[in-house]
Amino acid sequence: MRILLTNDDGIYAPGLRALHAELSKLGEVLVVAPATEQSAAGHSVTIYSPLLVQEVRDPAKNFQGWAVEGRPADCVKLAIRQILPWKPDLVVSGINAGSNAGINVLYSGTVGAAIEGAFFHLPSIACSLEMPASGPPDFPGGSAFATKIIREILTKNPSPGELFNINIPDLSRGQIKGVRVVPQNTASYVEWFDKRVDPRGRVYYWIGPDFTCPDPHPDTDVTALAEQWITVTPLQFNLTRFQALQIMQEWKWDLTDDRFTKELPT
Amino acid sequence: MRILLTNDDGIYAPGLRALHAELSKLGEVLVVAPATEQSAAGHSVTIYSPLLVQEVRDPAKNFQGWAVEGRPADCVKLAIRQILPWKPDLVVSGINAGSNAGINVLYSGTVGAAIEGAFFHLPSIACSLEMPASGPPDFPGGSAFATKIIREILTKNPSPGELFNINIPDLSRGQIKGVRVVPQNTASYVEWFDKRVDPRGRVYYWIGPDFTCPDPHPDTDVTALAEQWITVTPLQFNLTRFQALQIMQEWKWDLTDDRFTKELPT
Repeated sequence: MRILLTNDDGIYAPGLRALHAELSKLGEVLVVAPATEQSAAGHSVTIYSPLLVQEVRDPAKNFQGWAVEGRPADCVKLAIRQILPWKPDLVVSGINAGSNAGINVLYSGTVGAAIEGAFFHLPSIACSLEMPASGPPDFPGGSAFATKIIREILTKNPSPGELFNINIPDLSRGQIKGVRVVPQNTASYVEWFDKRVDPRGRVYYWIGPDFTCPDPHPDTDVTALAEQWITVTPLQFNLTRFQALQIMQEWKWDLTDDRFTKELPT
Repeated sequence: MRILLTNDDGIYAPGLRALHAELSKLGEVLVVAPATEQSAAGHSVTIYSPLLVQEVRDPAKNFQGWAVEGRPADCVKLAIRQILPWKPDLVVSGINAGSNAGINVLYSGTVGAAIEGAFFHLPSIACSLEMPASGPPDFPGGSAFATKIIREILTKNPSPGELFNINIPDLSRGQIKGVRVVPQNTASYVEWFDKRVDPRGRVYYWIGPDFTCPDPHPDTDVTALAEQWITVTPLQFNLTRFQALQIMQEWKWDLTDDRFTKELPT
């Protein structure tokens, strides 16, 4: 089993090291990860600037992986098309410092990298660990749980491009209840901006650090995680809202215009 | 009708100006857009740096909108929560210089901004114009078509948070055939990297400019656009792959670990 490991917290992140240690029990792991933190990078990619790539070694000069001055999704593209000596069997992203549940799935660089892996028809798994209210997160413990879930997913022989999102609850908050397979919550989070004025009189805003979803939909990733379940959500990257498609295909489009060559379809 | 207009090409982009002119026929339009080009920003947002906001005026000192030094999705958040004097009835993003079809929907800052509008329970529409092989795109013509489609969507009273993706074909290539409502293509695009070495001996890569999808799925946005149809795709931001959910809920998770307090659910 050959595994590409990336993340959005950057190649020096402790969550990446912890997950690397656990994944190494499943097979050969190579790291291609952002040189710097890329939280909330979503599925952004770099098209108008070059992607610098450098080998990273630890103080004992052991090879740690390749650092890319780009986005998480750039790392997956470059790894598969240019850097890795082999085509991976699996793409893993994480373990992220902070959960990626609900609509945060859309903002997540961790998930963005996994979706990119799915574009290459590889099974791809995003792993995130909920942050404790204070103190450092238990990355080794979270990575051990995430790797158990990954191992279980692998025993089911995932199809090419099958995509999964794993969230591990804050392990300091209490014991894990088990595993729940749940859909993504779509309710909104609390959000506010702190307005300030710079020394030159210009207005700027910081987004607040709140991370609460006051009214989550029941039986979703957000609620199950809050109840101390490990959550697993199968994801897709086809954003089509199929329920609306058929209805809209019946619509008549009144776009009379001399650029149209014929009657519009009804 | 109050419309928030944003984009990912930046507040000075000609596509934004052209779409502003057309949308003004539907109601009051205010612009909050990135200060700089943000192509391929996806749904990234800015959480670790401040968002500077400045008013932009044209040479005759007419107010043009607010420029945000951030991502397209940041613009929508800030516009609705801080900047606009009213809550918009509609969020429009575009018109983008280049189509946003197939898996490029995931990379698109134009679409990312529209999804952010849907998070606020507003009808939200992304508009993109395919680029000609050479010469400038016809932004006024593309914006006129996009606005006709928007007008038609509005006559159907879209639900809160309903999300649409409109692509207008390259108008220089031939006459428009009409409108097709189609799903997002999920096939891969051609992609390659140009490897170079900087004057200090460091390796870097440029992603190539190819933009062809050699094997698109039939009856999708990519194929219909190539056949000179305007495409409309209803989108969603729930990434759950529901078909897999039920199957996976039957899986047994063998995660025996002393952190688990009880038998795992089956």
